[in-house]
Amino acid sequence: MNLVLVESDEINAGELRLSGPRAAHLLKVLHVAPGHEVRIGVIDGPRGVGTVQAIADGTVTLRYALDGDAPPRPAIDLLLAVPRPKVMRRLWAQIAALGVGRIILTNAAKVERNYFDSHILSPESYRPLLIEGLQQARDTRLPAVSIHRQFKVLVEDQLDALVGQAARIVADPSATRGLSDVVRGAVEERVLLAVGPEGGWNAFELGLLETHGFLRGGMGSRILRSDTACVALLAIASARFQI
Amino acid sequence: MNLVLVESDEINAGELRLSGPRAAHLLKVLHVAPGHEVRIGVIDGPRGVGTVQAIADGTVTLRYALDGDAPPRPAIDLLLAVPRPKVMRRLWAQIAALGVGRIILTNAAKVERNYFDSHILSPESYRPLLIEGLQQARDTRLPAVSIHRQFKVLVEDQLDALVGQAARIVADPSATRGLSDVVRGAVEERVLLAVGPEGGWNAFELGLLETHGFLRGGMGSRILRSDTACVALLAIASARFQI
Repeated sequence: MNLVLVESDEINAGELRLSGPRAAHLLKVLHVAPGHEVRIGVIDGPRGVGTVQAIADGTVTLRYALDGDAPPRPAIDLLLAVPRPKVMRRLWAQIAALGVGRIILTNAAKVERNYFDSHILSPESYRPLLIEGLQQARDTRLPAVSIHRQFKVLVEDQLDALVGQAARIVADPSATRGLSDVVRGAVEERVLLAVGPEGGWNAFELGLLETHGFLRGGMGSRILRSDTACVALLAIASARFQI
Repeated sequence: MNLVLVESDEINAGELRLSGPRAAHLLKVLHVAPGHEVRIGVIDGPRGVGTVQAIADGTVTLRYALDGDAPPRPAIDLLLAVPRPKVMRRLWAQIAALGVGRIILTNAAKVERNYFDSHILSPESYRPLLIEGLQQARDTRLPAVSIHRQFKVLVEDQLDALVGQAARIVADPSATRGLSDVVRGAVEERVLLAVGPEGGWNAFELGLLETHGFLRGGMGSRILRSDTACVALLAIASARFQI
């Protein structure tokens, strides 16, 4: 944990009292003591520094100062065909750590219907994992999450409102240009990256994405496990926006 | 498993008999039956197609034809400060799937000494994981692995012989150029990518790497879990070599 994230209603006139898992982490992993400084952040708000004032009964009391503005929203949005629950569980924190503005989960022909019933798609499961990823990456911007059971309706009717102006790119093993080149060639300030299911998008889905402005970008011929692929593709797309 | 890898001494005059885990995977996951075709590959050798001839007592007998040459060796070599055993266990297959020619594991100031005693650094532990990654990615080229307890000796005396001609790049959060740019700016046909420990290289280590030709490349200011970072950095470095 490189930053302790708190809810906006937890901070109060410069004082913050932490108990539960965050306090346990501060005490048992970071071994804080009065006077120690700890990076803190408010979910979707600014970051700052807290100074430990007191420790009692597993509660850590800090005084804090915040920096002003929230960090900028990451420039990548992710359109992801729902993976197997086990893979999705691994991905939430990693996606948040890599940095995306929005996670749009969608059905596809090769997504099994019962994946949508998984507990891992409920906010009470994924929100703590997203926060874990933000705390790792020192970000405060919780990705917006939406779940769509109808791919066609999503692409035709909902995507414009969800993502606004963005270079739309679909990762596709048969692409004739590399993802990195396609991202670099884009003039937009944001990228919407579509990552298909294990087994890939079918021809209808790829066609519909292309009709709605998606360019294909490849990553070579190696077939990656879906969690590795998602991390690798996000990393390549994000590289354009990093020094 | 997108390719079944076999040892060179398992193939014999066009016939291959599989038992154990590979046969179980063919039977229980891929549900093969006589006449079915299966992609096969010989470790460090060519790929080809096998046709199931018979199934008996959990043994699958195939006739196969191979393509001729082994696939090219991946253009990236990885110099990695030994991560925690739990992280290393996750990484072996992913590194092999992403594709590297050589994995050079090294000590560093922020590597804990007992990491070197972990079972996960023994060939009987990591070789099956590397093979799992190759089978995922449809490659046959087993990465060469070497383990070095003396960072200075490695960099000063051993690296030239291990990697030959390659663009040397060290991932560093304080770099003023992005990793992607540095890789693209290189004229060499191979890249040696150095990935530090959790907490980073220290100043001496970074200095020594720079003295020995490493350029710094960054990935932005987000701090990633070490397995996510390693996958992300390999993906960005590999992107130069992909269509």
